[in-house]
Amino acid sequence: MTNKNNLVITIGRQYGSGGRITGKNLAKELGIHFYDEEILKLTSEKSAIGETFFRLADEKAGNNILYKILDHVKPQLRKPSLDGNMVSPENLFRFQSEVIRSLAEEESACIIAGRCADYILSEAEMENVTLVRLFVYADMPTRIQRVMEVDKVDVKEAVRRIKKIDKERKDYYFYYAGKDWMDMTNYDLAINTSEIDLEQTAEVIKDYLRLKGYQPEEIAGSEKSEEEKESKP
Amino acid sequence: MTNKNNLVITIGRQYGSGGRITGKNLAKELGIHFYDEEILKLTSEKSAIGETFFRLADEKAGNNILYKILDHVKPQLRKPSLDGNMVSPENLFRFQSEVIRSLAEEESACIIAGRCADYILSEAEMENVTLVRLFVYADMPTRIQRVMEVDKVDVKEAVRRIKKIDKERKDYYFYYAGKDWMDMTNYDLAINTSEIDLEQTAEVIKDYLRLKGYQPEEIAGSEKSEEEKESKP
Repeated sequence: MTNKNNLVITIGRQYGSGGRITGKNLAKELGIHFYDEEILKLTSEKSAIGETFFRLADEKAGNNILYKILDHVKPQLRKPSLDGNMVSPENLFRFQSEVIRSLAEEESACIIAGRCADYILSEAEMENVTLVRLFVYADMPTRIQRVMEVDKVDVKEAVRRIKKIDKERKDYYFYYAGKDWMDMTNYDLAINTSEIDLEQTAEVIKDYLRLKGYQPEEIAGSEKSEEEKESKP
Repeated sequence: MTNKNNLVITIGRQYGSGGRITGKNLAKELGIHFYDEEILKLTSEKSAIGETFFRLADEKAGNNILYKILDHVKPQLRKPSLDGNMVSPENLFRFQSEVIRSLAEEESACIIAGRCADYILSEAEMENVTLVRLFVYADMPTRIQRVMEVDKVDVKEAVRRIKKIDKERKDYYFYYAGKDWMDMTNYDLAINTSEIDLEQTAEVIKDYLRLKGYQPEEIAGSEKSEEEKESKP
């Protein structure tokens, strides 16, 4: 890797824009972890934190990094200086912020979708982390088409989901980050997927990473070499 | 050129973001024409249209394409079906729209900064034109720094110019396009120049053009070959 900093790619995305799928496929191609909103969201949806911890770990089977992080942040959560209500949305957000910062600290490279990760890591100003904040969007016809195909629903339901989920994301972002989710100035690169397909979208991202000094074929390099080291006697 | 369509790159940009300079340098590198707001703006600032035509032509010395276009649109402007007030802002906008559409029609490739060109050409839906709509922006510290360096002014004056000019551009865009200038959904790619320099910004654009089927080293190809043909006996 040309750049020695940890690399964190955050992806904000309109529902149906293909941002999540692009992020997931790209992470797989690069050999790095992908953390998406749906997984992290469990922490704010479940009042039983213990169970959520396990579910989180379970859905990321073989991902030791999460266990490490959970051990690290658990005591933090129990500090009485934190809000008395352990499971208040604000407290869960603080927990998630801890998780996100720890991921950035521990992983040589990863992709995080949603969850205000762009905001949390911008604020953290971690010197050893290169942050690439992406936003993926598309026009309504494109998004309706994608939601119909992926979710197997009709036009009406696709429109309903797009409006509902985007409103939730916008409200969530405004509540915690205090900024407009759709404001491009929150991001380093905003990509419209109406005129390009998802493979091309991944190419745009990889080209951008190259510019930032990260060769896609080497991004997972340091992790792999550690694994190799471990397997040696 | 892999893609046989004419290529028009429009660049909307915040003042001090470096969008104009990037566009200008890129056009030079690609061997294509660059049209910026300041030149086109003359048409709306000058009430003497005839003089403006000459100034336009004069500042694009050796650029035959503008002469051709002006010949084409002049009669249009004189049609009585158009607004009685030849030099009203709305009429000048219509004239400029004609010029922009003609540029898209005539030039195998060009870059246009500002002037709602993205909106005008989106609306025109020209089948033989591939439109790439870019927006370039940056955070305030970056923009203040650039304006101070380029305009040779102090911080206070830099901030004043940024606010004033961006407000003009925003108002202009809203007046003619009826949309928010800073809304990313108007554009195909929105690039933040706070963390990358202008050469890297140009690289982002060239990478995107490659994805759209335009090899940067071949973009001016068809024009050159016409010139070569002409120089032959």
